[in-house]
Amino acid sequence: MAGILRPMAKGKGSDQGKNEGIGGKITPRAEDYPQWYQDVIREAELAEPAKVVKGCMVIKPHGYAIWEKIQRDLDARFKATGHRNAYFPVLIPQSFITKEAEHVEGFAPELAVVTHAGGEALEEPYVIRPTSETIIGHYFAKWISSYRDLPLLINQWANVMRWEKRTRMFLRTTEFLWQEGHTAHATHEDARAEVERMLNVYGDFAEEVMAMPVVRGIKTDSEKFAGALTSMCIEAMMQDGKALQAGTSHDLGQNFGRAFDVQFQGEDGKLDYVWQTSWGVSTRLIGGLIMTHSDDAGLVLPPRVAPIHVVIVPIFRKAHEREAVMEAAARIKATLEAVDIAPERSRYRDFVEVVIDDRPLRPGAKFYEWERRGVPVRVEIGPKDIAKGQVAVRMRVDTAAGTGKEFIPEEEFIAGFRQRLDTFQAELQRIARERMESQMVTLDTWDEFLAAFAGDQSTFAWCHWDGTAETEAAIKEQTKATIRCVPLAGQGPDPEPGTCIFSGRPSARRVLIAKAY
Amino acid sequence: MAGILRPMAKGKGSDQGKNEGIGGKITPRAEDYPQWYQDVIREAELAEPAKVVKGCMVIKPHGYAIWEKIQRDLDARFKATGHRNAYFPVLIPQSFITKEAEHVEGFAPELAVVTHAGGEALEEPYVIRPTSETIIGHYFAKWISSYRDLPLLINQWANVMRWEKRTRMFLRTTEFLWQEGHTAHATHEDARAEVERMLNVYGDFAEEVMAMPVVRGIKTDSEKFAGALTSMCIEAMMQDGKALQAGTSHDLGQNFGRAFDVQFQGEDGKLDYVWQTSWGVSTRLIGGLIMTHSDDAGLVLPPRVAPIHVVIVPIFRKAHEREAVMEAAARIKATLEAVDIAPERSRYRDFVEVVIDDRPLRPGAKFYEWERRGVPVRVEIGPKDIAKGQVAVRMRVDTAAGTGKEFIPEEEFIAGFRQRLDTFQAELQRIARERMESQMVTLDTWDEFLAAFAGDQSTFAWCHWDGTAETEAAIKEQTKATIRCVPLAGQGPDPEPGTCIFSGRPSARRVLIAKAY
Repeated sequence: MAGILRPMAKGKGSDQGKNEGIGGKITPRAEDYPQWYQDVIREAELAEPAKVVKGCMVIKPHGYAIWEKIQRDLDARFKATGHRNAYFPVLIPQSFITKEAEHVEGFAPELAVVTHAGGEALEEPYVIRPTSETIIGHYFAKWISSYRDLPLLINQWANVMRWEKRTRMFLRTTEFLWQEGHTAHATHEDARAEVERMLNVYGDFAEEVMAMPVVRGIKTDSEKFAGALTSMCIEAMMQDGKALQAGTSHDLGQNFGRAFDVQFQGEDGKLDYVWQTSWGVSTRLIGGLIMTHSDDAGLVLPPRVAPIHVVIVPIFRKAHEREAVMEAAARIKATLEAVDIAPERSRYRDFVEVVIDDRPLRPGAKFYEWERRGVPVRVEIGPKDIAKGQVAVRMRVDTAAGTGKEFIPEEEFIAGFRQRLDTFQAELQRIARERMESQMVTLDTWDEFLAAFAGDQSTFAWCHWDGTAETEAAIKEQTKATIRCVPLAGQGPDPEPGTCIFSGRPSARRVLIAKAY
Repeated sequence: MAGILRPMAKGKGSDQGKNEGIGGKITPRAEDYPQWYQDVIREAELAEPAKVVKGCMVIKPHGYAIWEKIQRDLDARFKATGHRNAYFPVLIPQSFITKEAEHVEGFAPELAVVTHAGGEALEEPYVIRPTSETIIGHYFAKWISSYRDLPLLINQWANVMRWEKRTRMFLRTTEFLWQEGHTAHATHEDARAEVERMLNVYGDFAEEVMAMPVVRGIKTDSEKFAGALTSMCIEAMMQDGKALQAGTSHDLGQNFGRAFDVQFQGEDGKLDYVWQTSWGVSTRLIGGLIMTHSDDAGLVLPPRVAPIHVVIVPIFRKAHEREAVMEAAARIKATLEAVDIAPERSRYRDFVEVVIDDRPLRPGAKFYEWERRGVPVRVEIGPKDIAKGQVAVRMRVDTAAGTGKEFIPEEEFIAGFRQRLDTFQAELQRIARERMESQMVTLDTWDEFLAAFAGDQSTFAWCHWDGTAETEAAIKEQTKATIRCVPLAGQGPDPEPGTCIFSGRPSARRVLIAKAY
């Protein structure tokens, strides 16, 4: 663990310039939210812009460790719902992309193209997968011939590439890491049930593990996946009132089945195209995590995605005190590390991860650094604490899990540790949910709407919409706000008719509108 | 788990032709070893050639699940030795590759090149990473400034691409999955210790988890990694006497440090280039697994990498017997699945994975299919067994873990299950080690050598070599056999001087020679 104690980029004293190094300022959120976001990522050493590769980022160990926690929990949920992982080529013949008309329109502008390989020009170029519906469709056609082969439930963990013009770390990068589920079903009904099942897997994961509340809904036609009949999504509210589309689940109908000739013989002997779905979440989730919980002091992490749960800072002034203090620190570390905090019946263990920071630095400098990295629990231990059999504990954020510096008997701290983490997790979720709910508004007039979205402002606005693409486009053009989704049952105001906030025409129900990342 | 019970490719009755479908013949090893290898992969549904993407393969769920087992165990070993995972861009500016002279010579012919992206020609093309020393070197230069930043111990799990002319599933594919460790150290001594430490992590993993014995050694200069001072390797013997380089660990010296200007200030205040290492294993390991343990009936898997440990086949003739038999099968499955068979103190759980095959097929057809997939334990249960409180058990291979069909009281079977798997694991390792040792030969004359490597023959031959590249090249040209490694201490005959088997010149010690995959 020694490497964790050292920053991984040159400090601000370095000749690389301030923006390269860590140890710099975190801009307050109220002053400049986008800059705060960049600062938190830099100071917590989650990632850095690749620079030499356009729009890419380097995911540094602390950031990648969060992704590993996300992967492990999601993967278990996918397997529990009957999916199996597989791996398909990163290169896709260019002609494949053009087989589904809407798909090519959506993705063609963003493709990275391999034209040469092995020292020669290729007869047909390959594209680096922007998503894998096409190539997986090709193999589904080879693997499926009968209703007995269905449903086919596949997931892939992979890197993908979309040549975006404007990029922002984690939220939108040319290369990103994700998982993409691809399934084939005998009936549209089965496929639709799968789409909703996986959306709920995402929603439950976001809320339970990331402590990030979401609204579950259906995308409008203009916002759906290129090639889908309908797309479902989870939308999370960031601290600045903007929405983050955090996961999507698509009903592909028979579109790719037709494009790749994926036919099966039904029980009745008739041939039909399969009904397909796809669904994905990506490293973008880490951006959502940051903008849901973090504060002006840096990163805040819910325990279930925290790579390090506890930092122990030994406190002593005199050299002869060192041995006893380090001994106590080592004992607490060993005791905590044996605690398995994985959810019951999970397929993995999740031990408490503890770091002892014994660098020759002032305690205050250490506190400051670990705060920035979002470690949930800080423990201080010095000669007086040892004499009293206690530890000084400080949670990363004041909540019901702990407020201010608490002095707790060591045994009590250990015995209550799992409960402390669980409470902290629940508290972060409660705070995020209360913020989202308090910022949600029901708007009925266009003036109110313009006021709510003036300048860079955003919120989650429930508004009546006439259901037309023209109104949707006009709202976007005038305010930059977009229809995030038509909410599923229980995810917004109950459906009741009204008049469109923009056109005044009849509307069947309110939809969720916000500016989005 | 329902999907596991269905083959994932059309059977031989399909119009796709015999080679596409499963349910085909497995060619005996004695008849055609390369064909046997392809047949086992197809029939166990581990992978299939991608075809539409040159030299690539699709890793199917049963194959990918083996890779997941490999990843999980190796990743824990990397973390236990202080390494942290990170992620670097898949694209590398083409100019980076040329910065290290030997590196570009080694990799230039195999590069896939992205020349267009986002609808435009790129000013500088990117290559898809064939390995990441260059781009990681670039970031190491940003992250390292002082001896306090060292050692820096990073690992990456990723896909890489090398445009190979001749490909073979798992063993050599244009795209493959791997991990690449990249570390930087303050002294050559530290770097060399890291190279050997990680080689031993690989060797221990191969032997303990994959039950695949290896010889640990040092590559000759002509076989070392392009850009390394020296490369260490583990070499495994396949059943046909050929060697498989299963993992490598490289001492990069200061070559990449110089190329990418990775300098640090030492404790003495002087600037110096860092000493780097890199090390990797890939999906190639799965090829090694197949050619170490499998037989003419199909795949054989050591329990520690088996995605499914037990298949239960319910046996009944009359419909009214079905309920009691299925109930017993479900009970055994539930009891076994609660058993955590992960090694003690591991960071993960590893539950017994059980499948009940209740398809409307003859038991014999099921036995045949699960044998092909390498499931270690088969349990049959029928009305008579229930009456006697017993199960019928058949291990995939006859060993001390079980021979022929055994009838065992159900409770005894459950109580002894973990021991049964451990014994089976140990037995596969013993058998593989005995085969390797029995096929190793000490050769002293060129005639003996020619006889040992005549035609397609190979073995592990310990021979004296004069240490020159000319002799090495001549041996290769005349016999296709190559010097696999100069063994580390204890990995071959004790060093004693002799005369070169080819040139008759003096030799300091014997080296390992074999044909290789």
